[in-house]
Amino acid sequence: MPLQDDMHLISVDDHLIEHQRVWLDRMPEKYLDLCPRVVESGDEGMYSEFGTYVKPHSQAWLYEGNIHAQMGLNAVAGKPPEALGLDPVRYEDMIPGCYDPVARVKDMDIDGVQAALCFPQFPKFAGTLFLKSQDMELARLCSAAWNDFVLDEWTATAPDRFIPLAILPFWDVEQSVAEIQRVAGKGARAISFPENMVTLGLPSYHTDHWDPVFSACEDAELPLCMHFGTSGKVPSTAPEAPLAVFISLMSCNSMYAVSDLIFSPVLHKHPGLKIAFSEGGIGWVPYLLERMDATWEKHRFYQNINQQVRPSDLFRKHMWACFIVDQHGLASRDEIGIDRMLWECDYPHSDSHWPNSRKIAAEQFHDVPDDDVRRIVEQNARELFRFPR
Amino acid sequence: MPLQDDMHLISVDDHLIEHQRVWLDRMPEKYLDLCPRVVESGDEGMYSEFGTYVKPHSQAWLYEGNIHAQMGLNAVAGKPPEALGLDPVRYEDMIPGCYDPVARVKDMDIDGVQAALCFPQFPKFAGTLFLKSQDMELARLCSAAWNDFVLDEWTATAPDRFIPLAILPFWDVEQSVAEIQRVAGKGARAISFPENMVTLGLPSYHTDHWDPVFSACEDAELPLCMHFGTSGKVPSTAPEAPLAVFISLMSCNSMYAVSDLIFSPVLHKHPGLKIAFSEGGIGWVPYLLERMDATWEKHRFYQNINQQVRPSDLFRKHMWACFIVDQHGLASRDEIGIDRMLWECDYPHSDSHWPNSRKIAAEQFHDVPDDDVRRIVEQNARELFRFPR
Repeated sequence: MPLQDDMHLISVDDHLIEHQRVWLDRMPEKYLDLCPRVVESGDEGMYSEFGTYVKPHSQAWLYEGNIHAQMGLNAVAGKPPEALGLDPVRYEDMIPGCYDPVARVKDMDIDGVQAALCFPQFPKFAGTLFLKSQDMELARLCSAAWNDFVLDEWTATAPDRFIPLAILPFWDVEQSVAEIQRVAGKGARAISFPENMVTLGLPSYHTDHWDPVFSACEDAELPLCMHFGTSGKVPSTAPEAPLAVFISLMSCNSMYAVSDLIFSPVLHKHPGLKIAFSEGGIGWVPYLLERMDATWEKHRFYQNINQQVRPSDLFRKHMWACFIVDQHGLASRDEIGIDRMLWECDYPHSDSHWPNSRKIAAEQFHDVPDDDVRRIVEQNARELFRFPR
Repeated sequence: MPLQDDMHLISVDDHLIEHQRVWLDRMPEKYLDLCPRVVESGDEGMYSEFGTYVKPHSQAWLYEGNIHAQMGLNAVAGKPPEALGLDPVRYEDMIPGCYDPVARVKDMDIDGVQAALCFPQFPKFAGTLFLKSQDMELARLCSAAWNDFVLDEWTATAPDRFIPLAILPFWDVEQSVAEIQRVAGKGARAISFPENMVTLGLPSYHTDHWDPVFSACEDAELPLCMHFGTSGKVPSTAPEAPLAVFISLMSCNSMYAVSDLIFSPVLHKHPGLKIAFSEGGIGWVPYLLERMDATWEKHRFYQNINQQVRPSDLFRKHMWACFIVDQHGLASRDEIGIDRMLWECDYPHSDSHWPNSRKIAAEQFHDVPDDDVRRIVEQNARELFRFPR
C-alpha cells in the first residue's frame, strides 16, 4: 500500500492566474492607469510591446501603457493532450480554479491534493516582469500588491490549503530586505527567487550583492523557490526546434542553478539558506552530485571555491529537488536523499495530471515504502515551509 | 572478476596534439605562409587574434596571419590534481605521447588501453576552427591535410591501436560529401560532427541542409562523434563563475544535442545514422529518456514531430553515450541499454586517469557482470566503428 489515505499530498509547485482586480483593488489612485489591468483586443486585435499579435476578442494585460500578450500561459488543466498547444486568450477559456481560490480548493479536493504553493503568472514566476518598469516606485508597489493579494486574499481563503509564496523587488536590495521582513510578518512561508540573476541583467550569485537578501531570508526562515525559467532563459537549440526540445530539457536550467550555487560562496556564507528547485525534476540529481563531487575532488586546488565541503554534502544540507512524475528519480531516491524530495502538481499547467493527480501519484509510488512516500509527498514540504498539519 | 585480462579497453574519446609539421608537410607551397604553423612569442610575449596574451617564451599557432593562443589546452596527462589549472605553453611542457603516435602507443600500453579514437586539438574537436577562415580553399586543404595526417601518419603508425576519425569542411555541403567519400576510401571509421550547428552560424538539424552529408555518412557506414563543446558553446552561468561550474555541467550540452536530434527529422530521414556523444557522460540518460518519452506522449499532437516512434526507441536505435567514470550511469545500465554505452580514457586531458585507466576501470566495473563489461569497454566500440580484433 504505497499512497495511504491519510497521507496529504502537498504540492510545492502550482500556479495561479491573477484575476482582473488584483492591482486595481490595491494600488494608490495615481497609479490606477499604469498598474496592471486587463484590456480587450476588440474586433481588430492589437500588438503587444514586443510585437506579438493579440487576436481579436482576446484579453491581455496592460501595464505602464504596454500590452502583454500572454493571458493564461499554459493554463490548460483538464484538457486532453490532443487539445494542448493553444494558450487561453480569455478568462472564460480557463476553468475558474485558475483565478478563483474558492474554485481552486474545490479543484484540489477533486484532485486529492491537500495544499499548494502557487507561483505568480502575469508578473512572471519570480515577479521579474516588474524589473523592466519605467517607474520603479510603481514597480515596487505592484510587487508588494501581488504579495498582499496572495497573503490577504488567495491564501487567506483557506489558510490550511495554501502555502504563501512572496515575490521581491530584486532591482533594489534594501527594498527586497524590507519586503522580506514585511511579508514574513504577514505569514509568508517562501520567496520566489530567480534561478539565475545574470540573464536578468543583475549581479551573479558569485558576487556579494545578494548577501543582505539571503541573510534576511535566513533570519525570517524563508526558503527560496527557484522555479524553472525564472532566469528568463529557456533551453533552446535552434530557431526551428519544436517545443518538445525545450520541454524535455527544462531540467538543465535547474542543473545549471544547482551547480552555480554549489560552487559559489552563497551557501558557505549563509548556512541557514534553503533552496527548492521547482519543476526541475529529480532523475538527474544522482548524476550531477557524482559529477560535482568528482569535479571538486580533482579541480578544487587551483580554483576559488570552498576546499572543505563536498558538493553533495552541501546539496543535502541546503537543497530540495521537486518532481511531478519521475520514475528514475524515485527509483534513485536513496542516492538523492529521501528528505531532499518534494512532490508537485503543477495545476493548471500542461504537466499537471489534474483531476487525476492522486491516482497518478498512487501508481508512481506503488513500489515505494510508506515512510518514504509520506516524507516525499507531505512531511518534507510541511517541514521546509513550516506548514504543520 | 569484473574487468578480465583478455578484455581490451577501447577508448572512444582521446585527444592528439598536432605536431609542428602536420600542415607544413602537406600543404601546397603557395599556402605555406598561411597554413597553421607554430611560432615563438620571444622575450616580449604577443597578443592573439582575440586579444589573449601569449606569455614570453611560449609557442602558439599562427594561421592566416592570426595567433591562436591555446597550444596544449588541458594536455595535462600524468600531473597530480594539485598541479592542474595551467595549460602547457610549449611542446616540452607536454609528455611526448600528446603529439607523437609512437610515444602514445607506449603510454597506452602503460595505461592498459588497447585502442583509441583521437580528436583534433588545434582545429577544434570537430575541425570547426577552419569555418572562420578568409580563404576557404586554404581552409578546405587544411581540413583535408588533418585527415591525411591522421590516416597516413597517426593511425598508420599502429593501425590496430587507433580508430581513424575525420573532420569535414562544414561550410560547404558538397565538399563535405566529397571528403566523406575520400576519407572512407582511405579507411576512416568515424566523423567528428558538431553537437549543434546553430551556434556555429550554420543551419540547424531541423532544416534539410545537412541531408546530403548525413546520407553520405550512412552510405559510408561512418558514425558521427559529437564531442562535448563542438557547438562552440560551453555551459556558463555567470562571468565570475569558477571553472568547476562549467566542468560539472558539460553533459548538459550532450543532453541538448540528444533532444535536439531526437525531435528533429534527421533520424527518420536517415535510418542508418549512428551518433556517439563523446565526453557527455551517461548518468543523465535514464532521466532524459523518461522525460523525452513523457513529453512526446503528452505534447506530440500539436507539434511538427514524428508521431509514431517513441524517443527512447529512437535513442536505442541511433545513439551511444560515452563515459570515463560514471557510477550512477553504470548502475542504471539496464535503463540506458548495455549496447548503448562506450568507455572513454580522455588522454591527455585532465579528466583522464592515465596511467591508471585500467586500474580505475577495474574498480568502476567491480560489481558489473563480465558480459556487460566486455560490451561496454570493447565490443560496442568494435562494432560501432567497424574495428575488429
